[in-house]
Amino acid sequence: MHFPSSVEIIEVGPRDGLQNEKKFVATEDKKVLIQRLAESGFQRIETASFVHPKIVPQMADASEIVDFCNELGIFYIALTPNKKALERALEANVKQIAVFVGASNTFNEKNIRRTIDESLAECKEMFPIAKANGVFMRGYVSMAFSCPYEGAVSYEQVKKVVSSFVENGADELSIGDTNGRANPRIVYDRLTRLKEDFPDTTFVGHFHDTSGFALANILAAIQAGVTKFDTSIGGLGGCPFSPGSTGNVATEKVVEMLHAMNINTGIAQERLAGIAEFAKGLV
Amino acid sequence: MHFPSSVEIIEVGPRDGLQNEKKFVATEDKKVLIQRLAESGFQRIETASFVHPKIVPQMADASEIVDFCNELGIFYIALTPNKKALERALEANVKQIAVFVGASNTFNEKNIRRTIDESLAECKEMFPIAKANGVFMRGYVSMAFSCPYEGAVSYEQVKKVVSSFVENGADELSIGDTNGRANPRIVYDRLTRLKEDFPDTTFVGHFHDTSGFALANILAAIQAGVTKFDTSIGGLGGCPFSPGSTGNVATEKVVEMLHAMNINTGIAQERLAGIAEFAKGLV
Repeated sequence: MHFPSSVEIIEVGPRDGLQNEKKFVATEDKKVLIQRLAESGFQRIETASFVHPKIVPQMADASEIVDFCNELGIFYIALTPNKKALERALEANVKQIAVFVGASNTFNEKNIRRTIDESLAECKEMFPIAKANGVFMRGYVSMAFSCPYEGAVSYEQVKKVVSSFVENGADELSIGDTNGRANPRIVYDRLTRLKEDFPDTTFVGHFHDTSGFALANILAAIQAGVTKFDTSIGGLGGCPFSPGSTGNVATEKVVEMLHAMNINTGIAQERLAGIAEFAKGLV
Repeated sequence: MHFPSSVEIIEVGPRDGLQNEKKFVATEDKKVLIQRLAESGFQRIETASFVHPKIVPQMADASEIVDFCNELGIFYIALTPNKKALERALEANVKQIAVFVGASNTFNEKNIRRTIDESLAECKEMFPIAKANGVFMRGYVSMAFSCPYEGAVSYEQVKKVVSSFVENGADELSIGDTNGRANPRIVYDRLTRLKEDFPDTTFVGHFHDTSGFALANILAAIQAGVTKFDTSIGGLGGCPFSPGSTGNVATEKVVEMLHAMNINTGIAQERLAGIAEFAKGLV
């Protein structure tokens, strides 16, 4: 087995973790959460989504959150589901932007009412605009292992979305086990194959813990050469268009395991329990 | 990574899982549990301990349980902590016997009031008696990664116990993360080294899930070439001399992960949820 000396943990709790909470989390509380995370050593935090406030009211304060992040001077990621959202994010001076496409067509349609091809076409228009503004672009590939509607998702389905992102010049791709049904073998095989087919692309592992396999899946992804992972403080999260899914893998458990393995993350592990408690108290 | 075509799951719930329950579990209920497990395809089940009934009253019905197992015609393991217990087990016609020694001296003394050397000396007397009776001998190495009293347990401490068991002619050795504090890196490194130092010995992985790393630890052990694991239905278990430890890794989760990875266990996975529910209802 291969154990890298360090791994990057990208905290996605303030966006991916909170976005599906029905009760609006006060903007001030979100700021406290982001600041505490930033002070714990996270180099990148996904903090907001410029989705239309009518669709996800929880993210209606995206501009204010982003202004706060800019004042703090931290690196953060904001999600933009379409061109309009991208324009708002660029106006707010966001420097790292994420877009997403599901590898399963049924999920993509239920999630954002677009076919995969429609989503890819819109991304193709978004990337040049973002690139012209010097923005770091992350592509999320959702349901990259299986889908609650379609069952198994093939490698070819994933490759199609990845290829399109790569052609657009994505800076990194987050490969998502959005419904938390992957296992270490498919994780290892699929990520190994992606790295062979796209040797110049940076891949990030994004695991949910529905089956309790997330830590084993991260270990498998590390063996495939992945050294960046999305995690969510307190295990917040889930997806309303993914029935039965539970939250993202908990940041504090991933950091605990990596540090036990002498893999550096740059994160102050001792602070995480308190922040996780605070985060869980918000929902 | 390496994925074997099959793995043996040794169910230890009826002994390791139940032994520390204060409330006596009715012998009839234990029999139902064992029978249901046997009917689900487990090839070996640890069903009883011939420890003195005053020390572990829960195991006072060992002879009756063993008679039942012999009638059923299943392969099962019974634990014998000393020579007297071994004699009782042989009288009861047990065919697979387990003995145990802690790799940490403090734990061993608290657990059975003997130093490691005293335990090894007693085992040295027990093995020839068992061997003369044609019995399959399993050696448990407890606290093989860390100890709640001493902290880190060195490889040399583990090697000492393993060497003694191997010299005695043990048929297999179960390497225990008795307090559930191991991580995938130490598991991989230690088991790899043990297999190098003792190439003719069969090693079994025995993990508790205190930190939530048990499934990742099993994946790491598989990479080290281990293909046999002790698990406990419903995650029953723990150890009174290991403060803060939770139960053994749950059989149903391990089987679920292995089957998802196309690793055969011979176990009827669909029956396990019902048996786990029954087992949890006993404690």
